[in-house]
Amino acid sequence: MFRRITLFLILSTFAAAAGAAGESWLLVTDRWGNREYQALELQRDGGQLTGTLGGDRLQGRRDGNRLRFRIAGSDGAQYDFDGRQRGDSVEGQADYPDPNDATRRVQHAFTARRLPGRPPGGPRLHEFEPGDYANEFSPHRQPVLTIWPGDRVRTKTIDSGGIDEHGRTVALFGNPQTGPFYVAGAVPGDTLVVHLRRLRANRDWADSLDALVARAQSTALAAQTGGLGKPVRWTLDRERGVAHPARTDTTLAGFEVPLRPMLGGLAVAPGFGAAPQSTGDTGRNGGNMDFNAVVEGATVYLPVFQPGALLYLGDGHAAQGDGETSQYALETSLDVEFEIGLVHGKAINLPRVESAQQLLVLGQAGSLDEALRNATAGLIQWLQQDYGLDVAAAAQVLGSSAQYRVANLAGRSVGLAAGIDKSLLLRLRRGEAPKP
Amino acid sequence: MFRRITLFLILSTFAAAAGAAGESWLLVTDRWGNREYQALELQRDGGQLTGTLGGDRLQGRRDGNRLRFRIAGSDGAQYDFDGRQRGDSVEGQADYPDPNDATRRVQHAFTARRLPGRPPGGPRLHEFEPGDYANEFSPHRQPVLTIWPGDRVRTKTIDSGGIDEHGRTVALFGNPQTGPFYVAGAVPGDTLVVHLRRLRANRDWADSLDALVARAQSTALAAQTGGLGKPVRWTLDRERGVAHPARTDTTLAGFEVPLRPMLGGLAVAPGFGAAPQSTGDTGRNGGNMDFNAVVEGATVYLPVFQPGALLYLGDGHAAQGDGETSQYALETSLDVEFEIGLVHGKAINLPRVESAQQLLVLGQAGSLDEALRNATAGLIQWLQQDYGLDVAAAAQVLGSSAQYRVANLAGRSVGLAAGIDKSLLLRLRRGEAPKP
Amino acid sequence: MFRRITLFLILSTFAAAAGAAGESWLLVTDRWGNREYQALELQRDGGQLTGTLGGDRLQGRRDGNRLRFRIAGSDGAQYDFDGRQRGDSVEGQADYPDPNDATRRVQHAFTARRLPGRPPGGPRLHEFEPGDYANEFSPHRQPVLTIWPGDRVRTKTIDSGGIDEHGRTVALFGNPQTGPFYVAGAVPGDTLVVHLRRLRANRDWADSLDALVARAQSTALAAQTGGLGKPVRWTLDRERGVAHPARTDTTLAGFEVPLRPMLGGLAVAPGFGAAPQSTGDTGRNGGNMDFNAVVEGATVYLPVFQPGALLYLGDGHAAQGDGETSQYALETSLDVEFEIGLVHGKAINLPRVESAQQLLVLGQAGSLDEALRNATAGLIQWLQQDYGLDVAAAAQVLGSSAQYRVANLAGRSVGLAAGIDKSLLLRLRRGEAPKP
Amino acid sequence: MFRRITLFLILSTFAAAAGAAGESWLLVTDRWGNREYQALELQRDGGQLTGTLGGDRLQGRRDGNRLRFRIAGSDGAQYDFDGRQRGDSVEGQADYPDPNDATRRVQHAFTARRLPGRPPGGPRLHEFEPGDYANEFSPHRQPVLTIWPGDRVRTKTIDSGGIDEHGRTVALFGNPQTGPFYVAGAVPGDTLVVHLRRLRANRDWADSLDALVARAQSTALAAQTGGLGKPVRWTLDRERGVAHPARTDTTLAGFEVPLRPMLGGLAVAPGFGAAPQSTGDTGRNGGNMDFNAVVEGATVYLPVFQPGALLYLGDGHAAQGDGETSQYALETSLDVEFEIGLVHGKAINLPRVESAQQLLVLGQAGSLDEALRNATAGLIQWLQQDYGLDVAAAAQVLGSSAQYRVANLAGRSVGLAAGIDKSLLLRLRRGEAPKP
Repeated sequence: MFRRITLFLILSTFAAAAGAAGESWLLVTDRWGNREYQALELQRDGGQLTGTLGGDRLQGRRDGNRLRFRIAGSDGAQYDFDGRQRGDSVEGQADYPDPNDATRRVQHAFTARRLPGRPPGGPRLHEFEPGDYANEFSPHRQPVLTIWPGDRVRTKTIDSGGIDEHGRTVALFGNPQTGPFYVAGAVPGDTLVVHLRRLRANRDWADSLDALVARAQSTALAAQTGGLGKPVRWTLDRERGVAHPARTDTTLAGFEVPLRPMLGGLAVAPGFGAAPQSTGDTGRNGGNMDFNAVVEGATVYLPVFQPGALLYLGDGHAAQGDGETSQYALETSLDVEFEIGLVHGKAINLPRVESAQQLLVLGQAGSLDEALRNATAGLIQWLQQDYGLDVAAAAQVLGSSAQYRVANLAGRSVGLAAGIDKSLLLRLRRGEAPKP
Repeated sequence: MFRRITLFLILSTFAAAAGAAGESWLLVTDRWGNREYQALELQRDGGQLTGTLGGDRLQGRRDGNRLRFRIAGSDGAQYDFDGRQRGDSVEGQADYPDPNDATRRVQHAFTARRLPGRPPGGPRLHEFEPGDYANEFSPHRQPVLTIWPGDRVRTKTIDSGGIDEHGRTVALFGNPQTGPFYVAGAVPGDTLVVHLRRLRANRDWADSLDALVARAQSTALAAQTGGLGKPVRWTLDRERGVAHPARTDTTLAGFEVPLRPMLGGLAVAPGFGAAPQSTGDTGRNGGNMDFNAVVEGATVYLPVFQPGALLYLGDGHAAQGDGETSQYALETSLDVEFEIGLVHGKAINLPRVESAQQLLVLGQAGSLDEALRNATAGLIQWLQQDYGLDVAAAAQVLGSSAQYRVANLAGRSVGLAAGIDKSLLLRLRRGEAPKP
Repeated sequence: MFRRITLFLILSTFAAAAGAAGESWLLVTDRWGNREYQALELQRDGGQLTGTLGGDRLQGRRDGNRLRFRIAGSDGAQYDFDGRQRGDSVEGQADYPDPNDATRRVQHAFTARRLPGRPPGGPRLHEFEPGDYANEFSPHRQPVLTIWPGDRVRTKTIDSGGIDEHGRTVALFGNPQTGPFYVAGAVPGDTLVVHLRRLRANRDWADSLDALVARAQSTALAAQTGGLGKPVRWTLDRERGVAHPARTDTTLAGFEVPLRPMLGGLAVAPGFGAAPQSTGDTGRNGGNMDFNAVVEGATVYLPVFQPGALLYLGDGHAAQGDGETSQYALETSLDVEFEIGLVHGKAINLPRVESAQQLLVLGQAGSLDEALRNATAGLIQWLQQDYGLDVAAAAQVLGSSAQYRVANLAGRSVGLAAGIDKSLLLRLRRGEAPKP
Repeated sequence: MFRRITLFLILSTFAAAAGAAGESWLLVTDRWGNREYQALELQRDGGQLTGTLGGDRLQGRRDGNRLRFRIAGSDGAQYDFDGRQRGDSVEGQADYPDPNDATRRVQHAFTARRLPGRPPGGPRLHEFEPGDYANEFSPHRQPVLTIWPGDRVRTKTIDSGGIDEHGRTVALFGNPQTGPFYVAGAVPGDTLVVHLRRLRANRDWADSLDALVARAQSTALAAQTGGLGKPVRWTLDRERGVAHPARTDTTLAGFEVPLRPMLGGLAVAPGFGAAPQSTGDTGRNGGNMDFNAVVEGATVYLPVFQPGALLYLGDGHAAQGDGETSQYALETSLDVEFEIGLVHGKAINLPRVESAQQLLVLGQAGSLDEALRNATAGLIQWLQQDYGLDVAAAAQVLGSSAQYRVANLAGRSVGLAAGIDKSLLLRLRRGEAPKP
């Protein structure tokens, strides 16, 4: 709803100097009490300023520590900024059009802080030991680390109850997250790529419940479930790669399931205009997806809504059935290693998960019926974007080969994924150029 | 809603003669224009009659060709029948209590026909070449064959458009079915077991559409799908075991999918009080389930609602994605071989499908959300019935290991299956007798 | 999917003789075991036959008692009929194209019976005392009466348990219906108009339950509802116009509700290709709508799917809350008087109900969400058809003034109605011709 | 998940001095970065402190400006606070049990600020002119005014686009709200009562769209709605009490609807553990309910989740159809006068709206089906709490008399209300004491 590109009149004859030293800033406008973050890319050539703000072209001028620039938007409106720089920060006033009345202007304060440049030497491996944890997927939380596409991060997540690998409660209940990580260069409209290189339980137990979420209960079943919801401790036998209930004096004695560690929570910050999101909630930005395809070896794609993307992760599960029907899966703390990637200028509608075998798109909505509609649309978008199919061809591919999986039943929204085997698509690609 | 047990007073001293020659009849009562079918098991000992009707105890007397007997129901009411036998059929009048007023009686005509006894020599293989086809899953259609538990049947199904293996239209569009097969001994409350021993396409092509069912379309997607719904012919390469669109001058050139023949339709007749069911519809009796787990090697369990079960099958697909999102899957004619089984006195709530790897229960309802509730309840019932778990234990099994699959999106009801890997349950069984 | 118009070559020069005596027949084709009903309108001019079959033009010839005619369809195919007349009936063979292969023909038997002409003297009042009742909305049931548009019918309905005004059970449980009434002249594509002139309870009691349907129960509530479902007798005080629970020693002592007699069931027969419908089920043809707007004074519009429409009615309620949440409303027997109308050549998508104040369109689907989508589309269709609005204008009318009511939660499908106050539309009509 | 009652051992012999001067404080604990607000009620008697924190009993001691007190929770755990007072504020450290390990303690910083006492002289009328607006229903926003039960507030709301009565944009798009109002004495578990004494449009126009929300579109309809979503200006004729589209050269010329001003947004702050809520979202705390029963004369009941309740209001509509199907209703600015009430110690599950005629409970969920389940449970709760009915009696009341209305289709959740006419319940109350 809001676009800006500008040309500061006085400066309109100055062209952006090729080869000028680029600076990256994060500019924050206080729009009636709401902070809007935008990437500011500045080239200085003497007193002249060129560059972009939020992707729109900027021109301006520096006089001593005073910076003035104008953005001319594709909406035809002008946005003027006038500030004073002190070291790596700027403060000032922005002059905006009234969004509802082109004849009026409104004033907003803004600040900007300069972002560090990429260190020399190529992709790096970061070891990050978290000290505190986030209970909201928020655009306002201070990033814990700035990383660049190609970098790897080795870190840890604590369990959904805030308990770390040593059994100590170090954060508030409700999926406290590690992060956010600021991904340098990521801007709204990009796609963040998270390769999950390693996901391993780092302790020998997990907490769960003997519960059945309301969404999985028929009315008849609800009459039997009165006493459910009790804690169940699971033992993680990391050597054998299995988990089993810690108590062995029950009808479940002997029952064991393969360890398949996954991240329940993986999100970027929601965009301008959205409220900070509970770490128990989900959206197009990911969130508490609780999708058991988010395992070691998988790649997760998320649409970017804020400069730096602001990646959060947490809520590890040692194993989880489809839907997380027991409300808590096998909640545990994890060692995590991920590699970050970025697809610039390519927007996706919904979170995607790619494994060695499969493409999956996660629809999330208030009902499974709606989630399936969204997931299907998302998979068709993928087939259109990357495989050159039109909707008629995509319909045939789905009709013969679609796979649907229930991801999550335990949250406010449910998740349902639409998928397809990659082997079928490889074959499709061989046929990409039919003769006319 | 209707129970009967009776004791004809005059005859109450006659006991059922052990070892008396048993006769099996199918008794049909015309209840105000509605035919109710019940299994009548008769033992004759001189003039005395004993046995059961609809599972309730019967006592009575034969005088020449006149048969009179009384049923005393668990509801405390008496049901009296008075008829005359001519060869293998009986006609007469039944005297029932008014279902709404215990002080009144109502009269209904009834008929009965004697059923053949089981041929000697153990299970048999029947070759059945269908001559006509059913467009309703009806309790009223004349059975095409009587079979016994343990028997195998080799037969054929035509495609959903009524086209046979030779390309001729031999039945009305809309999933015309082969059958019904009368399974001797099956009565309401039993579970019918259908082992699918062989399912193979018997021609080289299938018909489909480039459609996307409404349930898979988001509102945004619906704007793109205006022109969809066109016929698409597929070639079935039975030698290589793959199918591909017959046209090769499209973006789908090179696309091929594995042949995985399945039965879209598999049903027993609905019970008394239900209307005949369209072969495009589904219910607890199975129906047009369009579930791509119903393949060669699978076993399907269906609850029995009528004497003889009355098994129908049809609507073969050479392959189908989850949900049959293209409205028509790869519709084709099939060679079918199945083996019949019967679990007497065990009722299941919903259709079940068992493969070598997995147990699956199919929930069918007006929304995926409701179908999932039903499927989950059905899977918990299975774990309770066959694995001795209580609901708390079942909740833990599901929470760690449940699998949900979308079966069908193309009908009036949708289908969603809840499943679990059998390998996990084997392990569970080893733990069946925990030490106290 | 199936259309026919034909031209018998030999006869192609004969024109339909204006003023020839018209005959109305009902022709039944046995299509692979499925009866298709079509209206046959015949004009005879000497040996020449003209007219229509199923709305398509017919030409043919009579030789003695032999009738031959051809229909040329808009699909370009020809349909030939060859039969012999005996009094008011004809039997013969029809020669159809193979629906899947234009190069082949298929043979079907047909019969026809001549329908009575309209008695002279204008609209009549029929008194019809039902003798038996239908438990299916079926196209195959013999009509109980032929009526003409403009006629009134005074008749009775029994309650959903089959109990008449005298307390006797005279039909099988499950909404047994009075009818069907054959509406002369009605053909598929028409709209049947049922003016409910009088609906009154004709006894002093009604039966209900203290139940809560599963669809109205949250999981938490389901824990409290274990003991529900018990019969509740209500007393109908027809003088004071109120109903109250017959027992007065409960917490509901003093509770009374206004009598507002309604028809739970009102349907025309489903069309060719659909199975007979249970009288507990619903569809675009109406059915067990259980909509408490179907009261005395209301007009119900139903799309016609069979020649004669075949109108059924039953399942009267003395009063009912929205949704029939107690599974049984206040079930009772009714005196009914209705007047029949017919809109020829105008198809509507869904059942409509019009009162003095309101237009209402009933969406019926597997979920309320889907029912609302359908109802809204139906109301927009009405605004388009009768008020000349485009979809943008209709969207504004709905956005400012739509009213949604839940009709029914107790059946397989749910019902939800979209409505609008007629007073707003009157105003709209005054503005019908805006100046350019 | 969190309970506290404590007894500081040293002080356990001090009893709360009756008649001691009470002080009300708001205590904020920083629990790992998350602010928990609790009402602190203190009585001082010399150096002794008694009172409650979050409703649990407190004992402690003051030494100079040092305050120490202990809370003993119903969970058996102790919570110790040690702080220093400076004027009307306190800062200190709290010592809590580890929520996951009873053998450990965790430390949290806390602050408290003293709340003003109730001014003498009984209920007051406040005139409040808002200066800025909230785009989140947040527990963290500074209250704009403290009010007491019985007080009235005269204030204004701007429209959903942030435009005030003079046509100026003064806040960010997206339902900016007036407030929050701090209701002295309100604590979690109470019910806030908002009597809407006056709601009037204070300008002559409203903004809407010619849109149809996705949830109201069938797939077939979606093909027609491509061009929708355009702005539509409405003229508000406040003298005649009607609204009509400002353009008169369309097919809607002459169309007008009655003005029926309502508040789309009305909420209290969400509780501890929940994220701040977008003013476009809803929950049990109310929110952007967009329910056209929230009009002048109505009383809205909301469950309280934070000390002071923190009441927000905004998003006025001059008129709105059920469901707000056009995404924007007739958005306008309003003069608002409300009177505040409080029911202490009575918790309700869901928002309730009471008019002169009707009780309504608003269920909000991801689907209408789920919303209806919730609304029904909420209405049954009301009948249980205030009318002494058990669930069986309530089921009969609903079965005969329930009314369901669709509130909102335009948000993330949908709203559906269950209602009943109060006239029926008056009658019920007369029968409250049946003779045994």
